[in-house]
Amino acid sequence: MSAPPPFDLPRRLAAEALGTGLLVATVIGSGIMAERLTEDAALALLGNTLPTGAILVVLITVLGPISGAHFNPAVTLAFWLRRAIGRDDAWRYVAAQLAGGLAGTLAAHLMFGLSPFSLSTHVRTGPAQWWAEVVAGFGLVGVILGGLRFDARAVPWLVGLFITAAYWFTASTSFANPAVALARAFTDTFSGIRPVDVPAFVLAECLGAVLATALFGWLLNPGTRPTIRGALSGD
Amino acid sequence: MSAPPPFDLPRRLAAEALGTGLLVATVIGSGIMAERLTEDAALALLGNTLPTGAILVVLITVLGPISGAHFNPAVTLAFWLRRAIGRDDAWRYVAAQLAGGLAGTLAAHLMFGLSPFSLSTHVRTGPAQWWAEVVAGFGLVGVILGGLRFDARAVPWLVGLFITAAYWFTASTSFANPAVALARAFTDTFSGIRPVDVPAFVLAECLGAVLATALFGWLLNPGTRPTIRGALSGD
Amino acid sequence: MSAPPPFDLPRRLAAEALGTGLLVATVIGSGIMAERLTEDAALALLGNTLPTGAILVVLITVLGPISGAHFNPAVTLAFWLRRAIGRDDAWRYVAAQLAGGLAGTLAAHLMFGLSPFSLSTHVRTGPAQWWAEVVAGFGLVGVILGGLRFDARAVPWLVGLFITAAYWFTASTSFANPAVALARAFTDTFSGIRPVDVPAFVLAECLGAVLATALFGWLLNPGTRPTIRGALSGD
Amino acid sequence: MSAPPPFDLPRRLAAEALGTGLLVATVIGSGIMAERLTEDAALALLGNTLPTGAILVVLITVLGPISGAHFNPAVTLAFWLRRAIGRDDAWRYVAAQLAGGLAGTLAAHLMFGLSPFSLSTHVRTGPAQWWAEVVAGFGLVGVILGGLRFDARAVPWLVGLFITAAYWFTASTSFANPAVALARAFTDTFSGIRPVDVPAFVLAECLGAVLATALFGWLLNPGTRPTIRGALSGD
Repeated sequence: MSAPPPFDLPRRLAAEALGTGLLVATVIGSGIMAERLTEDAALALLGNTLPTGAILVVLITVLGPISGAHFNPAVTLAFWLRRAIGRDDAWRYVAAQLAGGLAGTLAAHLMFGLSPFSLSTHVRTGPAQWWAEVVAGFGLVGVILGGLRFDARAVPWLVGLFITAAYWFTASTSFANPAVALARAFTDTFSGIRPVDVPAFVLAECLGAVLATALFGWLLNPGTRPTIRGALSGD
Repeated sequence: MSAPPPFDLPRRLAAEALGTGLLVATVIGSGIMAERLTEDAALALLGNTLPTGAILVVLITVLGPISGAHFNPAVTLAFWLRRAIGRDDAWRYVAAQLAGGLAGTLAAHLMFGLSPFSLSTHVRTGPAQWWAEVVAGFGLVGVILGGLRFDARAVPWLVGLFITAAYWFTASTSFANPAVALARAFTDTFSGIRPVDVPAFVLAECLGAVLATALFGWLLNPGTRPTIRGALSGD
Repeated sequence: MSAPPPFDLPRRLAAEALGTGLLVATVIGSGIMAERLTEDAALALLGNTLPTGAILVVLITVLGPISGAHFNPAVTLAFWLRRAIGRDDAWRYVAAQLAGGLAGTLAAHLMFGLSPFSLSTHVRTGPAQWWAEVVAGFGLVGVILGGLRFDARAVPWLVGLFITAAYWFTASTSFANPAVALARAFTDTFSGIRPVDVPAFVLAECLGAVLATALFGWLLNPGTRPTIRGALSGD
Repeated sequence: MSAPPPFDLPRRLAAEALGTGLLVATVIGSGIMAERLTEDAALALLGNTLPTGAILVVLITVLGPISGAHFNPAVTLAFWLRRAIGRDDAWRYVAAQLAGGLAGTLAAHLMFGLSPFSLSTHVRTGPAQWWAEVVAGFGLVGVILGGLRFDARAVPWLVGLFITAAYWFTASTSFANPAVALARAFTDTFSGIRPVDVPAFVLAECLGAVLATALFGWLLNPGTRPTIRGALSGD
C-alpha cells in the first residue's frame, strides 16, 4: 500500500476524499443513531464502535490500491517521514482528507435530518485525554507499519480491529486522526468535539505518529550483531 | 463473481431465490427475536445487525460461485449497466429475488408462529430517509465493484461489513435492496416498512446504484496522462 | 475436510469428543455467565452468541484436519449420505460426540460451581420451534457442503458466522446439533432444553440435514445442457 | 511462529514487552471505560471482551514475526517444553512480559486520570475459578499448537477468537496469562484481581498449559499403525 500505485493524482485524491468522507459519515451517523436509540452510554459506544471498525476494513480494501488509503493526515505524515510520499502530494492528500471529512459530516447530518453543520459542545481536553491520543496515534501508525512489513493484505483488518479496540481502551475513544477530529468539531452530536479542543488532539495524534515511525523504524529492521567470525564466515 | 459461471440457469435462479430468501429470513427473524427479548432499541438493532452481516458473508461465499450472489435488483441493475449480465437474465434474476424474498418472509413468520404475511405499519419516509437509501445503495454497489476489482475473494466480507456499518450510519438502517424492501413490507414486525413507502426506497436505492456505477467506473479505471514523450517511449 | 485425513481412529475420535466438549462447554458456560450478569434477555443471548460463533471458528480450524470437525451427528449423517464416511466410523463418531458433549456440560458446571448435571426445565416445543430446527439443520449442512465445494479454507468461518446468525433468526436459537441438544438437556440453566423436548429437535435437525444434502447435491453439481453441437465439439 | 526469527534479542524482547503492555492496557483500559459507561455487568464484560479479542489479532500479526508473540509466560513455558525456545531466552521473555505488563497498567491508568498503580480488591478465588483457569490455559495453548500445525497464518485470529469466547465461558473470565494476571493485580478497577489470588491463578494457568502441551503433542502427531506389510512396502 505504500508503493506508488498506477492511479493518477485526481483519482488518488478522489479516493482520499471519498474514503475520509465515508469514514466520517459512519462515525458521526452511527453516533447519532446510537444516542437516539438508547440511554445506555456503553451500548451507544458499542453502536459507534462496530460500524467504524467495519467500514475501515471495507474502505481500506476498496480504496487502498488507488491512493494507499491514508484517510488521515497523521498517517500521511508518517509516510512522508519514511519518504513513501513526496511533500507536495502529502499536502494535497491532507487537503483532500480535510475536505472529504467535512463532506462526511454534511452527508451524515442530512441523513438524520439535521442542519448541515453545528459546532460541538462536547468537552474533550486535559492531559489524560491528550496522552490517550498519543497512544492512539502511536498504535495506529505502528499497526500500519508493522502490517505493511509482515502481512500487507491484512492491513485493512488490522486497522479496523485496532480502532475497534482503541475506541474502548483509550479515554478519548481514539480519534487518532486530525481530519476526522476537525470534521467532528462540526457536529453537536454523540461523537463531536469542541472546536477549541481540536488543536491539542491534532498535536497529540501527530506526536504519536512520529514516535511510532521512530520506534517501528528500529523494531522492524532486523538487527545485526556483526562479529569478526560472522564477517569472516559470511554468516 | 461477475464472470459467467459454469452453472445453468435453473441453478443460478435457484441460488438467487435461496440466497435472497435466507437473507430476508435472517433480517426479519432476527428482528422479531430482538424485539421480543429487549425493550432497548439499540440492543434490538444490534441483534438485527450482527446476524444480517454474518449471513451475508456466508451466503455470498457459498452461492456466489453459482449465480454471482446478487440477491438484490439494484446490484443486478449495476451489473446490467456494466454489461456483465444480459437483459433477459437480469429480469429473471430480479423475479427470482422477489419470489425468494417473499418466501423468506413466510419462512421467518412460520418460525416465530406468526401468520404467513402481515402488512407493515412501520413508517419510513421523507427526504432524509431517501437520501440515506441513496447513500446505502451507492456504498453497497461501490464496495462490490471495488472489491471485485482489487480482491474478489474478499467481497463476501466486504458486503457483510458494509451492511453492518450501514445499519447504523444511515437513518433508514440501510435497506439498500429493492427485493428485501418489498419482502419487508409484508411483515408487521421490527424490520417492516409500510408498503406505501417502498417505491421511494426502491427508487433511491437504484439511484445510488447508478451513481456508484458511474463514479467507480471512472475511479477504478487507472487514468492516463498521455504525453508526446509517453506516446513515443511507449511509457 | 471430507477427504480421509492421515490421522488414526483414536486421534480422530479424540478430536470429535474434545471439539464437541469444548463447544458444549462454551454454549452452556457463556449462557450461565450471561444470565448471571444481566436481566436483559437480548444481551444474554448476545453473550451466548458471540462465544459460540468464535469457538466454532477456532475448533474447526484446529481439529478439522484431524477428524473433519463434525462435532455433530447431523453433519456425520450428511457425510454418510454422501459416502464421505463409512457406517462403522459414523457410529463411532456419533458416540464420541455424545460422550464429549456430556463431558462439556460437566466441565462448564464445575467451572461455575454447579452440581455436575441437572435436568433442564426449559420448555422448547411446538411446530414453530421444530420448523426452526429444520431450517437450522438445513442451513448448517448447506453451508458446509457449499463451503467445502467452493472455499474449503473458509468453512470454519462460515460455520461460525452461520450459527451466529441462526442464534437470532431461528425461534429455537438454532441448536442444529443432536449431540449438543442432548448435552443441553442436562443443564438447568440459560441454554438448557427439557429432556422430553430433545427427540423432536433431533428429528427436525436430521430432517434439515437430509433436505440440504439433497438440494445442495443438485445445486452444486453444475448442470449440463447437452446439445448436438456441444457433444460433437467436446464443448 | 515458533521458528527462530531473524530478529536480534533486543528487538525480540522489545516486541514481547510492547505487545504484553498494549494487551494489558487494552484489558484494563476497556474495563475502566466499560464500568464508567454502564451499570449492566454483561454489557461491561462485552465492552471488555471485544477490544481484547481485537487487539490480540493485531498484536500477534504485527509482532509475531519478530518475537513469536508469546506475551504470556504460560505460552513461553509450553514452547520451552517443546524445545522451541532455550531456557535462558525463556527467562528473558518472561521478564520482558512482566515488565511490559506493568507498564501497560501504568499506561492505562494515566489515560483515565488514575494514580499510577492501585492494589485490586477484586476477589477471584476458589476451586471453580481455578478449574476455569486450567481450562483457559489448556485451551489457549492447545489452540496455539493446533493452529501452528495446520494454519500458522490463522493463529492471530484463533487466539483472539478463543479469548473472546473464554471471557464468557470460563467463570474466571479467562485470564489465561500469568503476566497479565500480575499486571491486573495493580489496578483496583473492573478487570483487577486481588494480589493474594494471583499465585493460584498462575499455577492453574501453567497446569493447563502443560496439559495441553502433552495432549496436543499426542493428538497432532499422526498415529502410525505399523504393520509388516507397511514396513516392507515403505507405506
